[in-house]
Order: sequence, then C-alpha cells, then structure tokens
Amino acid sequence: MGLDNASVKPHERLAAHLSDDMAAVNALIRERMASKHAPRIPEVTAHLVEAGGKRLRPMLTLAAAGVCGYEGPYHIHLAATVEFIHTATLLHDDVVDESAQRRGRPTANLLWDNKSSVLVGDYLLARAFQLMTDTGSMRVLSILSNASATISEGEVLQLTAAQDLRTGEDIYLQVVRGKTAALFSAATEVGAVIAGADETVVDALRDYGDALGISFQIVDDLLDYWGTGEIGKNIGDDFRERKLTLPLIKAVAKADATERAFWSKVIEKGNQEDGDLEQAIALLTKHGALEDTRKVAIAWSDKAKAALEIVPESDLRDMLCDIADYVVARLK
Amino acid sequence: MGLDNASVKPHERLAAHLSDDMAAVNALIRERMASKHAPRIPEVTAHLVEAGGKRLRPMLTLAAAGVCGYEGPYHIHLAATVEFIHTATLLHDDVVDESAQRRGRPTANLLWDNKSSVLVGDYLLARAFQLMTDTGSMRVLSILSNASATISEGEVLQLTAAQDLRTGEDIYLQVVRGKTAALFSAATEVGAVIAGADETVVDALRDYGDALGISFQIVDDLLDYWGTGEIGKNIGDDFRERKLTLPLIKAVAKADATERAFWSKVIEKGNQEDGDLEQAIALLTKHGALEDTRKVAIAWSDKAKAALEIVPESDLRDMLCDIADYVVARLK
Repeated sequence: MGLDNASVKPHERLAAHLSDDMAAVNALIRERMASKHAPRIPEVTAHLVEAGGKRLRPMLTLAAAGVCGYEGPYHIHLAATVEFIHTATLLHDDVVDESAQRRGRPTANLLWDNKSSVLVGDYLLARAFQLMTDTGSMRVLSILSNASATISEGEVLQLTAAQDLRTGEDIYLQVVRGKTAALFSAATEVGAVIAGADETVVDALRDYGDALGISFQIVDDLLDYWGTGEIGKNIGDDFRERKLTLPLIKAVAKADATERAFWSKVIEKGNQEDGDLEQAIALLTKHGALEDTRKVAIAWSDKAKAALEIVPESDLRDMLCDIADYVVARLK
Repeated sequence: MGLDNASVKPHERLAAHLSDDMAAVNALIRERMASKHAPRIPEVTAHLVEAGGKRLRPMLTLAAAGVCGYEGPYHIHLAATVEFIHTATLLHDDVVDESAQRRGRPTANLLWDNKSSVLVGDYLLARAFQLMTDTGSMRVLSILSNASATISEGEVLQLTAAQDLRTGEDIYLQVVRGKTAALFSAATEVGAVIAGADETVVDALRDYGDALGISFQIVDDLLDYWGTGEIGKNIGDDFRERKLTLPLIKAVAKADATERAFWSKVIEKGNQEDGDLEQAIALLTKHGALEDTRKVAIAWSDKAKAALEIVPESDLRDMLCDIADYVVARLK
C-alpha cells in the first residue's frame, strides 16, 4: 500500500492504520449527530464534521486504546465523544460580538448566526455526554467532564488575559492547557482507561497528550507569524485579534520603552495601522522571540515522546512518537 | 412561623420546608461556580445565581427525593446540577445576533458580551456534569444528558419553527418540552431515582415534572399577551421577537385571509408597526385564543396533579400539588 513510504505524513500513516476504527467512529458521529426534530442541526454540523479535518483527537483515543491492547467496543464511543466536544468548541468559538464583526474581517460564522452556533454546539456537548454514558465507565465520565471544565475555564481566562501585556508565560501555559491540551490529554487518558491499562501507562498516555497538545498549540501560535497560511490560518490573524501569544510575550519581556508603547497600542488599545504587523514581526525577529518559541515547542514535543518510553513497544506507539515529531516539523 | 398561612405562596411554602437543603444547595453552587483561574466566571454568574430566582427547578429535585424518603446526600448535588444547567441555558439564551441588537430593543446580555455568555455557560455545563459524576449513578447521568440533548434540540427547533406560520400545536409542544419540560421532568425524575424509588413512582414524578413544565411554559407564553409584566417579562416581548407561541397558533388556525396576511407580515416578515401588538391582541381575543390557551395550561396542570396520585401521601406531595395549582393561578 506504500503507506510506510517516508513521504506519507505521520498522521496519514496513523489514519491508515486506524482506518477500520475511524470508519466506525465516523458512522457513529453521523448517527448521533442526526436530529429527528431539528433539521438545522445536521445542516450546521455537516460542514464541520464531514469536511473532516485531520481528526487527530479521535485518532489519539483510538491509538491510546490500541497501544494498551483494547479490542473494543467503547473506544469508538470515546473517540466520537472527543470529536463532538472538539466540534462544539469550534462552534462556540465561532460566536462573535458586534465589535469583532465591526472590525471588518471575515468571521468564522459567516454561514450561521451566533444563536445557531451556540445551540448546535450545546446539542453536540449533550450528545457527547450521552456517548460517554454509554460506556458505563464512571472514571471516563469524570475525566471528560473535568476536561470540559478546564477547556471553558481556559477560554474564559483567555478573554481577559489575551489583551493584557502583564500576561506572562505561566498564564499563557494555563490558557493553552485549557484551550488545547486538556482535550488532547483526556483523549489519550480515556483510551488507556477504557483498555484497563496499568496506572503508570494511563499516566504516561495522559502526559503524552498533555505535552503533545501544548506543543501543538505553541506551534499554531508561532505559525501565525511564521507560516505560509497552508493550514487554513492567515498570517497575522492572532495579531489582528489582539491575542498575546507566546512569541509576543517573549518579545514584550525584552521590550524597551518605545517597543512597549507599540505593543500597548496594538494589543491593549487595539489601535492597529498599516505596517504594524510588519513592525511586530520585526520586533519578534530582533529579540529572537520566534526562535525561542520554537525551542519551547520542541521541548514539549520531546516531553511527549519521553512520556511514551514506559509504554509497551508497538507500531502504534511508534506512530504516536512520530506524531510528536510531526507537530514541530511543521515549523521547518 | 406563619408559613402555613394562606397568603404565603406555594413555592414560598416549599422553599421554607426545604430551607436547610436549599442552604446546602446554595453553598454547593457557590463552591462549584468558583474558578481559581478565571475571575470573570463568578462575575458573570453572580448576578444570575445569587440574584436567586425562585429556584423552582432545584426545589423540585429536593422535593422529589424527599417524597421518596431519601435522606441524602446526593439530592444536594443533583439540585445544584439542575440549577447549573438552567443557568447555562439562560446564559446561552442571552447570546444575540446583530440583527436582534439592531432592532433596538434592550437585549438580555447588556452586561456581558456574547463570548462571555457562551463560555461561562459552557463552564457551568461542565460543572453540572462533574456534579452528576460525583453521585456515582450512571442512570442519573443518562437522564440528565438526555435532558440536555432534548433542551438544545428544542431550542434549535424553535429557531426555525417560531417564525413559520405552518407551525402547529404539535411542533409547539415539542419546542416546549425541549425548552422547559425536559429539565423539569429530569429534575423530578433524578430525585426519585437517587432515592431508589419504585419504578412506578419514578415514572409518576417524571410525568409530574413533564406536565408541570409544559403548563408553566404555556402560562409564560400566555402572560406575554395577558400579564401585567410583574414576572419580569414585558407584554409583547414574544411578539416583537416574532415567536409563534400557542395563543398565536390558535388564532392563526382560525384566521381569515386578511388576518393571515397580518400574521404573515408581523411574524414571518417581521414587519411590525405601531398598533400591531394591539391588533394582535384584538385578534387573539376575537378568536378566544387566550381563553383556549388558558384551558390547555389548566389541563396540563391537572395532568401534573393526577400523576402524583400514586405517590405516597406526605406534606411534600401536597406541596408539589399546590405548585401545580399555583402555576396556572398566575393567570387569574
């Protein structure tokens, strides 16, 4: 099948390895997404769920269960749960305020109004909790409801912290854990739990998901100033949304008075003019903030791989290892 | 204490009877609402949770558990869960679209922006699921996650059905079950379940909650054309929001061609002018739609009381019966 070829990306190799399970996950998603009474629900979710991103999160659940030798059937439910929670988060992120719409940039919810995004997101969350309940595992429910609380707490924290120049790396890490790593780590942890793995293996897979998620989000934030836009994000999106991400936090820490005034103007006051994004990138480069951020991402990727060391060897374990490499390879 | 005095309203009498438990519920709500990391969370929820509406839903859970002889401690968790789900629903209902804001009416989320309403609502939902998990009862989790799905499904259905003159009483009932009765019936059902009540009693208390919730919502919809605004709702709010509620559905069913054109103009097309609300009320009166709606509300209230007949007699049971009377007594 040529899937071991070096040109095949690690997440594609993982997807090929898990293709039967992922087909079952997709079927379950379609089944549970349906609503007999409210046809708008599948209309709204179709473009999110069917468009099929990389499905990285449900694959992590399947892979974690597989690494622990689980043969089913509830890894399918848990993978669908994780994808539903992720999709609900995307829908709720689509909700914008008038002020955001007024800035004239295209918003994520062009297709659907705020109200539909909120209510359909709620529906998917409820469906996610129904799916977890099906597994009959109280521990799984506890892990995933804790993750849900951490996700929304992180998002709320971001609302207040992201436009405040006093925000340091510790708060940034907390936001990242909330908005990304909480679901990654819950995804791998529940896979191990449903498989009845040893506690050390459960811990290792949770730590792997946590570190992978942090690395993933730092890379995402870095690509906002570095990337080519190939992953569906435009350079400078975070800047225009006045999000104080790690590259900026590192540059602000080294800023002199003039530079600090610049950051305050564009981030805190939101007074952005032509040329400001270029000026921001120049300051990030001057202080080595992009390179320093890249090093942090790589350190988290290494931490993810190290966590896997105590996990019994298998093809799947190697693939999880490759995923950790691939996350930071996007920076090359 | 004078609480048996006839001038004391039934929900006040119930609150007095349950005051110790309600104090525990309120303490648990305050504890679980807190966020170490995101101070905006308690800011947003305080005015909703502390302002303390009637707390009818958590009292229903406590009363249902009490009627079945339960002595604790998880009825407290479940009552707090139900209140969290209700508060999250209110927050998500606060989310508005630009079009709604543009109509110039005061919106519910004047204090908080859309994004905060969504994310803090999500946080409360996650907290609700954590609370349920604490009870260790998978059946309770199943009931409440089903209720959550029904609630959001009902709200989504309302988005599309409410401005469509083809919407009949069957669809209306489905919306009402979603937006109100699903949580009422889950509130009473989980009280009975956690108490380990007989299945017939569980069914009876669930049916009581369902019928009470339907009656409650029909009365609420009726008061929009009938009330004095004392319950914090202004006459004509639903009309201005173009919601096709039961009184309108009954009037549309009897409308001649001219009247139908009027309803289409004000509800479907949203083209409302001065005097249209008065014209709507005149049509509702002409066709007896307000009186007919009142009869439907009373029939559901009667159904709620009938459901209680097989429940063992107690002061609490009588109070639940009085609550069903009180819901429709608001119409006098």
